[in-house]
Amino acid sequence: MKWTGAGRQTKAGDLVLLMGQRQKYHLIPLIEDGEFQTHRGVLYHNDLIGKPWGSKVSSHKGNPFYILQPGIEEIIYSTKRNTQIMYPKDIGYILIKLNIVDGSTVIEAGTVSGSLTQVFAAIIGDNGHLFSYEAREEMQNLAKKNLHRIGLEDRVTFIQKNIEEGFEQENIQSLVLDLPNPYDYMDVVKNALIPGGFFGCILPTMNQIVKLLTALKRSAFVKIEVTEIMLRHYQAESNKLRPTDRMVAHTGYLIFARSFEKNFEE
Amino acid sequence: MKWTGAGRQTKAGDLVLLMGQRQKYHLIPLIEDGEFQTHRGVLYHNDLIGKPWGSKVSSHKGNPFYILQPGIEEIIYSTKRNTQIMYPKDIGYILIKLNIVDGSTVIEAGTVSGSLTQVFAAIIGDNGHLFSYEAREEMQNLAKKNLHRIGLEDRVTFIQKNIEEGFEQENIQSLVLDLPNPYDYMDVVKNALIPGGFFGCILPTMNQIVKLLTALKRSAFVKIEVTEIMLRHYQAESNKLRPTDRMVAHTGYLIFARSFEKNFEE
Amino acid sequence: MKWTGAGRQTKAGDLVLLMGQRQKYHLIPLIEDGEFQTHRGVLYHNDLIGKPWGSKVSSHKGNPFYILQPGIEEIIYSTKRNTQIMYPKDIGYILIKLNIVDGSTVIEAGTVSGSLTQVFAAIIGDNGHLFSYEAREEMQNLAKKNLHRIGLEDRVTFIQKNIEEGFEQENIQSLVLDLPNPYDYMDVVKNALIPGGFFGCILPTMNQIVKLLTALKRSAFVKIEVTEIMLRHYQAESNKLRPTDRMVAHTGYLIFARSFEKNFEE
Amino acid sequence: MKWTGAGRQTKAGDLVLLMGQRQKYHLIPLIEDGEFQTHRGVLYHNDLIGKPWGSKVSSHKGNPFYILQPGIEEIIYSTKRNTQIMYPKDIGYILIKLNIVDGSTVIEAGTVSGSLTQVFAAIIGDNGHLFSYEAREEMQNLAKKNLHRIGLEDRVTFIQKNIEEGFEQENIQSLVLDLPNPYDYMDVVKNALIPGGFFGCILPTMNQIVKLLTALKRSAFVKIEVTEIMLRHYQAESNKLRPTDRMVAHTGYLIFARSFEKNFEE
Repeated sequence: MKWTGAGRQTKAGDLVLLMGQRQKYHLIPLIEDGEFQTHRGVLYHNDLIGKPWGSKVSSHKGNPFYILQPGIEEIIYSTKRNTQIMYPKDIGYILIKLNIVDGSTVIEAGTVSGSLTQVFAAIIGDNGHLFSYEAREEMQNLAKKNLHRIGLEDRVTFIQKNIEEGFEQENIQSLVLDLPNPYDYMDVVKNALIPGGFFGCILPTMNQIVKLLTALKRSAFVKIEVTEIMLRHYQAESNKLRPTDRMVAHTGYLIFARSFEKNFEE
Repeated sequence: MKWTGAGRQTKAGDLVLLMGQRQKYHLIPLIEDGEFQTHRGVLYHNDLIGKPWGSKVSSHKGNPFYILQPGIEEIIYSTKRNTQIMYPKDIGYILIKLNIVDGSTVIEAGTVSGSLTQVFAAIIGDNGHLFSYEAREEMQNLAKKNLHRIGLEDRVTFIQKNIEEGFEQENIQSLVLDLPNPYDYMDVVKNALIPGGFFGCILPTMNQIVKLLTALKRSAFVKIEVTEIMLRHYQAESNKLRPTDRMVAHTGYLIFARSFEKNFEE
Repeated sequence: MKWTGAGRQTKAGDLVLLMGQRQKYHLIPLIEDGEFQTHRGVLYHNDLIGKPWGSKVSSHKGNPFYILQPGIEEIIYSTKRNTQIMYPKDIGYILIKLNIVDGSTVIEAGTVSGSLTQVFAAIIGDNGHLFSYEAREEMQNLAKKNLHRIGLEDRVTFIQKNIEEGFEQENIQSLVLDLPNPYDYMDVVKNALIPGGFFGCILPTMNQIVKLLTALKRSAFVKIEVTEIMLRHYQAESNKLRPTDRMVAHTGYLIFARSFEKNFEE
Repeated sequence: MKWTGAGRQTKAGDLVLLMGQRQKYHLIPLIEDGEFQTHRGVLYHNDLIGKPWGSKVSSHKGNPFYILQPGIEEIIYSTKRNTQIMYPKDIGYILIKLNIVDGSTVIEAGTVSGSLTQVFAAIIGDNGHLFSYEAREEMQNLAKKNLHRIGLEDRVTFIQKNIEEGFEQENIQSLVLDLPNPYDYMDVVKNALIPGGFFGCILPTMNQIVKLLTALKRSAFVKIEVTEIMLRHYQAESNKLRPTDRMVAHTGYLIFARSFEKNFEE
């Protein structure tokens, strides 16, 4: 069941966001005869199935919960993971720069926990496709579970392989690397991309960027951009409007480029 | 003809990115028997139609051009406009926060020049739909032309109307306002959104945020967030890696919230 | 004894920075026959007095410590306080904008814990003078102790008074307010400043700035600037150069202006 | 005549800030019988000498000008230069981190146009001293002229020398390098500083920081910090409070460390 196709009422198989008091929320799949334990009491799934979105229900202790549709951001943050997730601020910009839209054909490597995988799958639709490479089996299995949870596994082909042997696809429009050493793979990236195709990656350190820039120029990529997205939160108080005290200062640098023929720039 | 559905070769009707020397580029639709004048010579469209993406062609003066698929970012920047466009850094984050994915049903007001309109249309696919409100006729016509250029008009219903009279839809998942006074419309926004639905807007000044926060709380929105996205570019030189000298310091603050029942927060 | 006048050797009365293993440090005044307890053992002050700066000494447990001169930043951070200190990033910019140099005559209100007081005193020298206003007695006493510790009390006159009654000085060059409601005092500020004198203040919220801008214009201040200083730290690792994960996102906005005759701007 | 020692009235030799309409200003030294041409008319210096600060005078065309004391920031921005100046945001933070206060003994290299030179001279007072090294004669002459303009030449010794031969002083408290290759001089820096002394430098690129970090660790510096100061300006309009559209994104990274004995960090 696809999480995004929901109508006005919940069905078994839907992923729902249960929001309790103080805006605390839980993300769970509805399963017939299921039970969900919270410290504010038990909720019976059968009481939740078939309800209009936005309905108010009560736990066995009488505490109120609201049934909401989860958004892609809540799905990212609730992704089971054993590594750092990619942040919404970075994912959003990658979508635009890599031209990820309905119908896009995309490669990503590595899959890691699958946070980017889920967003790509949600956007490319049934006419697009994502090929997701990951060398580590247990990592790939985790990503598969995460994708299964939102019902979008048909849009993704998982491939367990070390990409130094090359990608199995050609003429791909968009390709993103989430690996510590992307600079080692610029030639295989180029072979997989359609001429003019979109390349992007995220890297935490300046030392990695230096190496990547050298590799990108050697492999004749053009429109190379090195950027960084900073997100600042403000206190949402109308009479005390100010930034929050602390912020995430760094997640990674985003580097983008387009595949190209050699020796055009002379 | 949909810009995103392109195969391996160009066809009449496709939007193409012609990249000349020094990475200067032009975005044009291919028209049978058409001509395109550049200061590096004339290109005949019939020479461009039917070519594989990435092909090299020459102007009548012998200057090289490459035929590439345009990306959504290049489409945004080449949008004909009579106002400020929305920036990719902000659009990307809005996509995630407003849960704009394949199949989403979305309202935007105002349409303005249609930069957000085009990105939403490209992402929601044929299963989604966008209702785009704009009170000014000439502004709406411009947006229609921009959307027609990328062949996605079937995914958008344009409505010329002042939204203070209310939206014509209900149970909408996501709604974005790009207006100077969103705080005047919180009740009509609420009536259009499905309970739990996603609201967002962009505002340039702090004074506007103060008013909006008051209105959001009065209309019982929850999960209110005030944020700001800053984008920093770096020189893409491996031996002189540093930020560029100047940057855009401000486009607007992004405010997000979710529609909700009154009086839950007691 | 003035902390800044130190020769090549320590003397009783000097403030010293004792740096132990892992760069942990302590800031203490040297007192004849004194003892200093650390969890790495006891240090006897008499063993520290008369030593060249940079000397290595040992605790009774044999752990090494180095005797260094403290810098003004370490003094700020070790200031005893019952409120938020002002941060070095903001203080540094205030010094330049308010023209705090050798010989400056300055007013500050309130004194608070005296972190700005200490920096001003260290810079203005014996030819300058600082008048420091604070309404709360216990706060002023704390600031006096902090100033005494660095031996610069001769450069500061502490005045316990609510400034709405006005300042006792005239023709002052520079005046800084660290108060929540500076907008209530623009006329008394103007009476204290020499025409053209420098005004500055720090405010955490946008709502306060809005009020202050109105007050500054009403009282005919010119060259009004609203600014914000952001400090980003990087990991000091040559092979993993990147920003630290988190940062202080906000301390306060800095507002500067110069006192002026009324009605010049017509 | 020292610029900072001004009383309540102007004297021949004073540096004055003449502010005309629209807050346009000029920084000039008062010279007996001098004339100052502006496009709003001529001002005769004798009409300006002996006037109280803040006085209003008129050009021969009847346009009003106000006589103000210049601040250190206006002096920095009006420094005659043939290179990039150092920005107030960076200078302010350097003052705190390098412990530049009344009485400080400081080395800087290179002098360049002397913007930092002037600020240091204004702060250290007659009890402090600055040794300023510069290899290029014409650059040094420019800095001397700039320092002469503010009357502080007694506080600075200019030395024309390439610092790879070493500094002529020892036991210096604070030392700042404004050179492209500071990493080549860490041993001579160490020989000049008192143990525990303060070192700082400004560098535009990440590549230079990588080299410097290696050199600092090799020469046993401690408390190494790599930082960056960002300054954001806001529109000073109470009903349209927002950041300005564009900002300076980068001037340089600031690196600080303290000189130390070898091999303490084991």
